[in-house]
Amino acid sequence: MEQMAIQKIDFKVQSESNSSSKSEISVRDFKVIVDEPEQLGGTNHAPNPVEYILCGLTGCVHILAYKVAKELNFELQDLKIHVSGELNPEKLFGMPTDDRAGYQNIHVKLNPITNANEDLLKKWLEIMAERSPVLDNLLNPTTVSITIG
Amino acid sequence: MEQMAIQKIDFKVQSESNSSSKSEISVRDFKVIVDEPEQLGGTNHAPNPVEYILCGLTGCVHILAYKVAKELNFELQDLKIHVSGELNPEKLFGMPTDDRAGYQNIHVKLNPITNANEDLLKKWLEIMAERSPVLDNLLNPTTVSITIG
Repeated sequence: MEQMAIQKIDFKVQSESNSSSKSEISVRDFKVIVDEPEQLGGTNHAPNPVEYILCGLTGCVHILAYKVAKELNFELQDLKIHVSGELNPEKLFGMPTDDRAGYQNIHVKLNPITNANEDLLKKWLEIMAERSPVLDNLLNPTTVSITIG
Repeated sequence: MEQMAIQKIDFKVQSESNSSSKSEISVRDFKVIVDEPEQLGGTNHAPNPVEYILCGLTGCVHILAYKVAKELNFELQDLKIHVSGELNPEKLFGMPTDDRAGYQNIHVKLNPITNANEDLLKKWLEIMAERSPVLDNLLNPTTVSITIG
């Protein structure tokens, strides 16, 4: 079968205001609720924005982990992923700080159950890191326009 | 009341494998499901990783929009946010391409209901853009370590 040309995809979401901290976001037929925990000024009904960034990264690495394992012809019997990131919320709160607003560092730890050897797992890791959309958008600058209207 | 020093926060998530495309992610007491639509190789049970990135950005802008409006002493009666991003999935699929893996551009459009004037809204936009953690992590490079074990 001939390889089909892939079109650029335009992903879209839109939010309704639920309160000053809580938004309800439509993503195709899905709803995603975002809130803040009480200590960050919210009502704690859902994960907060920066936690969703870690979820996006986790899900992206998960999907690539299985995809690349299949390409490299080894079986991934199970996979757990731990992702963490350190963030100083002072800038968010408008307090004086030299720290950036966002995550300073993010750490991804993969616990695969597989009988692939170390060399193969190293290759697996390199390929998935190269091809992960979310990782790319975190590691490298992305243009973001913000407008009113 | 004296301003309390704010500690750096360590945000954490962890995933269980549900299938090759679907992961179930624990975020404090919340569960977030990530999947891919069928045309991207998944089972379409939830938003996909890059859609969660747009949700995180939307939620972050939402929270700052209300916070900064309050600081600037105007009322935000309602707020809708549209966020979109273009992505070429060829790199994700391991196809030859000069395009990056992630979003090439992201667009945020705010529809506030308010009687604040244009100058005030311009200031509002500038302050929230400066202080948004998610926006910072997209606009600027972030260190991400990936390890096995």
